[in-house]
Amino acid sequence: MATPTTRGLFISFEGVDGAGKTTQVERLAEFWRARGREVVVTREPGGTELGTRIRQLLLHGAEPIAPRTEALLFAADRAQHVAQVVRPALDRGAIVITDRYLDSSLAYQSGGRELTADDVRALSLWATGGLLPARTYLLDIDPAVSLGRLEHEQDRMESAGAAFARRTRAAFLTLAEREPERFLVLDAREPIGRIAEVICQDSANLVG
Amino acid sequence: MATPTTRGLFISFEGVDGAGKTTQVERLAEFWRARGREVVVTREPGGTELGTRIRQLLLHGAEPIAPRTEALLFAADRAQHVAQVVRPALDRGAIVITDRYLDSSLAYQSGGRELTADDVRALSLWATGGLLPARTYLLDIDPAVSLGRLEHEQDRMESAGAAFARRTRAAFLTLAEREPERFLVLDAREPIGRIAEVICQDSANLVG
Repeated sequence: MATPTTRGLFISFEGVDGAGKTTQVERLAEFWRARGREVVVTREPGGTELGTRIRQLLLHGAEPIAPRTEALLFAADRAQHVAQVVRPALDRGAIVITDRYLDSSLAYQSGGRELTADDVRALSLWATGGLLPARTYLLDIDPAVSLGRLEHEQDRMESAGAAFARRTRAAFLTLAEREPERFLVLDAREPIGRIAEVICQDSANLVG
Repeated sequence: MATPTTRGLFISFEGVDGAGKTTQVERLAEFWRARGREVVVTREPGGTELGTRIRQLLLHGAEPIAPRTEALLFAADRAQHVAQVVRPALDRGAIVITDRYLDSSLAYQSGGRELTADDVRALSLWATGGLLPARTYLLDIDPAVSLGRLEHEQDRMESAGAAFARRTRAAFLTLAEREPERFLVLDAREPIGRIAEVICQDSANLVG
């Protein structure tokens, strides 16, 4: 197993769609750029060209994809993202901010019938050579609010999608409870500026 | 982990290119079809449409593929092959004969700098839910002979490809030594008919 990189700072943002991750990622990037640090902003899925092509396989296949195949393809995407983007940037000493990482796989893929969250976690950690973020900011919000933000369709609230979003939110919160040293949970209903302030100050403390 | 299927019979053929696997796979398939059994002949890579597309990623990517990404993509191919082709056929009670399986990954991928054979084996077993063949026929041959068979170019014998083939042959033999109950090693210089006779009889003993 490769050793985790220590020179840079690796940060991930997690949360359901509509929680405000993109905005907070940009605020944090600006904070560190203003302080003269190299900042690399990236995302999963889609951090590499190969990863994008792997995702096309997942989305547009003609055949049903087996659960283990799917988990391995997600892990392959992550392995390439880490090897090609994240680790080289950390080795240069950059601040690497990723919009979604391993916890999204755990929150979205777990609850299936065949695979456990432990399976998916072990696979992801193998894929990344054990690389975990120094800090994960979980933007927590009631999906009834976040889906409203995204879609402006209140009737979606009672759909299967809403139930899925509620389960995903609960899964994220459970992950955060298990690793309180890595996670910082933020109430995403708070004003954007206030959330950004907390996150920027916290990340500054990490750099020390 | 899914339980291995027991109704059918799962057989793999391994060996370097030119060892005569394709011929022996066909002989064994004919043997069982003549006895009224359903026979499914398949191969890795390429047993599924998704697997074929995964392989295209591996072969034709614009970016260098990281070692872990590569191993995960091979495992994804195998997971889909097992879930979509091998297990359903075994569940029907078929004789499933695959031209290459997990041992080819071990023989060809090991020896890299970052990944151990144990890594690749654990990943493959996870991908397949622990499914190993009841018997693996290793057609063993000196690459100097097999490459000659394939290419009719004796000058290839001193190339880097020949050294690679020699290492691969040695890796296959080491795998066979470690699992003598699963492997049957056959001298691929013997006449085709004699090899086929030994294999067919041995597989009949497995069905008992």
